[in-house]
Amino acid sequence: MHYPSPHSGEVKSIKWLTAKTSSAWLEQAISHPLEVLIDHAHCERKAAGAALQLMFRYLCEPGLAESLTPLIKEELDHFEIVLDLIKSKGRYLEPLPAPPYGTLLSKQIRKDEPNRMLDSFLVAGLIEARSHERMKLLAQHSPDEELRKLYSSLLKSEARHFSLYWRLANERYQRQEVISRLEELAIAEAEILSSLHIEPRMHS
Amino acid sequence: MHYPSPHSGEVKSIKWLTAKTSSAWLEQAISHPLEVLIDHAHCERKAAGAALQLMFRYLCEPGLAESLTPLIKEELDHFEIVLDLIKSKGRYLEPLPAPPYGTLLSKQIRKDEPNRMLDSFLVAGLIEARSHERMKLLAQHSPDEELRKLYSSLLKSEARHFSLYWRLANERYQRQEVISRLEELAIAEAEILSSLHIEPRMHS
Repeated sequence: MHYPSPHSGEVKSIKWLTAKTSSAWLEQAISHPLEVLIDHAHCERKAAGAALQLMFRYLCEPGLAESLTPLIKEELDHFEIVLDLIKSKGRYLEPLPAPPYGTLLSKQIRKDEPNRMLDSFLVAGLIEARSHERMKLLAQHSPDEELRKLYSSLLKSEARHFSLYWRLANERYQRQEVISRLEELAIAEAEILSSLHIEPRMHS
Repeated sequence: MHYPSPHSGEVKSIKWLTAKTSSAWLEQAISHPLEVLIDHAHCERKAAGAALQLMFRYLCEPGLAESLTPLIKEELDHFEIVLDLIKSKGRYLEPLPAPPYGTLLSKQIRKDEPNRMLDSFLVAGLIEARSHERMKLLAQHSPDEELRKLYSSLLKSEARHFSLYWRLANERYQRQEVISRLEELAIAEAEILSSLHIEPRMHS
């Protein structure tokens, strides 16, 4: 199976996450590899949808569509890669009930502009950061070599997507404001994760 | 400016449209080339959004995501190309009030399954067919050579996108059912167009 630019060297951790993923999550994920893989396909699809929604909401914001369209296309590339692997293992997309992580995190987005745009970038970035952290674990610990390769190959993009949202925020807001808000949201993100029942999902 | 695979030879008309675009529309469009171009960028974006929405609605429908993801990526490629040209002409995306074409046409989609899926494919296909017909006119008659080149280069894809929705329908429904419903919807499409005030928009 053909994967995008192979993982070369160590991808650094994204320093903003305030809590590490538990070993209990990793154990669950490793014992239900196909469920996590199918859930991951849904995550790529949803990441594309969320970015397209941002592009629709801030239609005429200079520089935004130019940054988001390549990201959406890349999320869809990854969706296709993950779907191919799912099919090669004799399965297909299945309707997996999603944990409330995304919904709860989105509730942290303030309703008034320009706060709403800032929070939208940072929440999207934090989801990418958490995906990056967990895919790194799966790339290291999955017993299935093909899955290790897949997650390794996708890792870098997740980190790059975090950086893209970080850049979009910093281009439009004061650096100190971005940092304080990201710190607040990162605390909320960790609290949300710790409140969830652990399931074989990317964000449970 | 770099355009996708150049238009080679004549692209055939899509025979299903029941009424030709009026010369009044063409005159309006040619005298407001940048407005039509900006509207066209919005159309590419909306076509990507509509296809993604279909993919979300019919998540586990075999073969659907595989067909729609390349289409969405291509719509976004075209969005980028059109946006580049808009910028090279010193403009940017602007919030243009859209004519009610899409909304009125979507009202023709029956609410019950499996009719809803069939109608969704056919309505999306008809919009592509109308874009194809009008872009062909613009490719022939725009006074600006760059615009003629752009529309020529995008034409074939619109025809291909119609074919994709046609194929998605025919793979899942009886051919005669597809043809009768497409004929009905094509009549509705022409009626909707004829009821609209002519503006410099792709679908007015």
